[in-house]
Amino acid sequence: MSSPVRISLDVMGGDHGPDVVLPGAEIALTRHPDIAFLLYGDSARINALLKDRPRLAAASTVIHTDVVVRMDDKPSQALRKGRRVSSMWRAIDAVRMKEADCAVSAGNTGALMAMAKVNLRMMSGINRPAIACLWPTMRGESVVLDVGASIGATAQHLVDMAVMGAAMARIVFDIERPTVGLLNIGVEEIKGVEEVKDAAAALRSADHPGLAYYGFVEGDDIGQGVVDVVVTEGFSGNIALKAAEGTAKQVADFLRGAINRSFVAKIGYLLARGAFRALRDKLDPRKSNGGVFLGLNGVVIKSHGGTDAEGFASAVDIGYDMVRYQLLSRIEAGMNDRPQVGRAAVADVSVSDELQVPS
Amino acid sequence: MSSPVRISLDVMGGDHGPDVVLPGAEIALTRHPDIAFLLYGDSARINALLKDRPRLAAASTVIHTDVVVRMDDKPSQALRKGRRVSSMWRAIDAVRMKEADCAVSAGNTGALMAMAKVNLRMMSGINRPAIACLWPTMRGESVVLDVGASIGATAQHLVDMAVMGAAMARIVFDIERPTVGLLNIGVEEIKGVEEVKDAAAALRSADHPGLAYYGFVEGDDIGQGVVDVVVTEGFSGNIALKAAEGTAKQVADFLRGAINRSFVAKIGYLLARGAFRALRDKLDPRKSNGGVFLGLNGVVIKSHGGTDAEGFASAVDIGYDMVRYQLLSRIEAGMNDRPQVGRAAVADVSVSDELQVPS
Repeated sequence: MSSPVRISLDVMGGDHGPDVVLPGAEIALTRHPDIAFLLYGDSARINALLKDRPRLAAASTVIHTDVVVRMDDKPSQALRKGRRVSSMWRAIDAVRMKEADCAVSAGNTGALMAMAKVNLRMMSGINRPAIACLWPTMRGESVVLDVGASIGATAQHLVDMAVMGAAMARIVFDIERPTVGLLNIGVEEIKGVEEVKDAAAALRSADHPGLAYYGFVEGDDIGQGVVDVVVTEGFSGNIALKAAEGTAKQVADFLRGAINRSFVAKIGYLLARGAFRALRDKLDPRKSNGGVFLGLNGVVIKSHGGTDAEGFASAVDIGYDMVRYQLLSRIEAGMNDRPQVGRAAVADVSVSDELQVPS
Repeated sequence: MSSPVRISLDVMGGDHGPDVVLPGAEIALTRHPDIAFLLYGDSARINALLKDRPRLAAASTVIHTDVVVRMDDKPSQALRKGRRVSSMWRAIDAVRMKEADCAVSAGNTGALMAMAKVNLRMMSGINRPAIACLWPTMRGESVVLDVGASIGATAQHLVDMAVMGAAMARIVFDIERPTVGLLNIGVEEIKGVEEVKDAAAALRSADHPGLAYYGFVEGDDIGQGVVDVVVTEGFSGNIALKAAEGTAKQVADFLRGAINRSFVAKIGYLLARGAFRALRDKLDPRKSNGGVFLGLNGVVIKSHGGTDAEGFASAVDIGYDMVRYQLLSRIEAGMNDRPQVGRAAVADVSVSDELQVPS
């Protein structure tokens, strides 16, 4: 049997802390018995909860921490008070110290990203981190990034995200060359998307072995599952994700309200509830819970702060997969021959120069 | 009775041209008998269709044009071949010549915006146009802009859009001070949203009589109807709109598929179909059809290219309202005392300077 996957947990993170994190870890452990957990947090609370969970207790090491990063702490606050001493920092630090293969936290995104950047640092050649999520589509799921790590992106950042997102998609979907699309808007000849166009040119001409560049996709193509990986900068990515989540919730709420207003409709709902359950299942945010931080020297997974044990287990699952199937070395391999922005254009110029040489 | 609202139509625009535009115009005319239409396009086709529509014919003047801007023409191509001679240009030109109060086209967005900018020019003090749409929400509808006129926005552009969007919302929702939110992402202290923050500071301190500034909203707040007007730059606005539209379609398609796989579920659907109809009605893209171009010296409405007569009629309706309730003079009034970016900060500095004067 291969060596265990060692996962460090920020047990105090999220809206519910240990009450969700530990049951979630237990669920993930039943699916992946080869996980070894490092549990960072209030040891009294953790040990009390572990009493009724002998199997989780057997797979876990508890490390006491006093400081908790709160959900509304700003990144700078979190760093000031939580550096070296908080459960969040220590969970990340375990990855840096090679004591864990991956850290999972339901704590606040800004603080987690700030600590991860400060502690793990960026991978060589990558300037900015990205957060990748799994987006439910008509065809299954797609990887979408960046959904909020940073705002704006140069063409090279977009290309780097394509390479990193494809590395993740290879693991999640088990396909050799995932299709990658660049998110764009449909209006032609509009000024200001030079970065997106330059990234497209680089990706198209590079023919990178780790991904199949598809072209531009628009906002409505994401949910259709047109490509395996959708790349955009973090502002538009975050807004697209939340607008889509909001719409799904809005549709569900509206339908529930409309059904509840009529007795006959309620009967109808009961008869059709298999279909409704399938829909709820399909759109269950818990199943696609787990934002993967990309570009760092280590695997860090962000769980939704308000999720339940099932949702937290999904975040642990995705961390497990990223470690077991070697996300970092796949990204490194992809970055070795990453497409260079501008190289294509330069090559074109030299060809045309050659042609113009008087013969 | 007040004077008629004169609406010029690009009859050749859209996927279906006259076959949708004229029936759509007729529907709008039954709702607003005081419309006078100028119909630009192939007069033979138009007159043939008007034969069976005596009421529309009586309210219309037909002006023959030879050139059609196609749905896939780039803006520059459209201007080259269509300037002065196409149905699209002529419909806009009627507004410039004060022969019409408003132009409506289902033609391609980029070409329509390019022609509108070139021909009507920007309103004094406004640097960039915006496209505003009506977004169905849990509470009704909200005005969202910019959904794709231009990419990126300075703080002052965002403020100008707030003023213009509020002017439109006052008409559509008949409220004196619509609430306005700036679209942002939730992560604190992230670099790159200085424009959004500066616009927020200006809007907050200005206390503009035409709008009530709410604060930041996130992508999922749009569909909840948290504010009457949502302001963002065109790239993220377009992507948010399409992601939401895509999700609504995805949910509907999935539910339809799930219901069709089971006989009992089909029976259930029949019983609950009132609720489904209410949902379809709520999300009917035809009802919120009609993007309003803001910032130009004239009212131009963009209809979806693929819509049907009912959808085109909605676009005419919104143009009618914008004229009848004086969108342009409302925007002008709002711009007269528009919040100035930086002024708030400057005021703060002088106060603190005063305090530091040795006494």
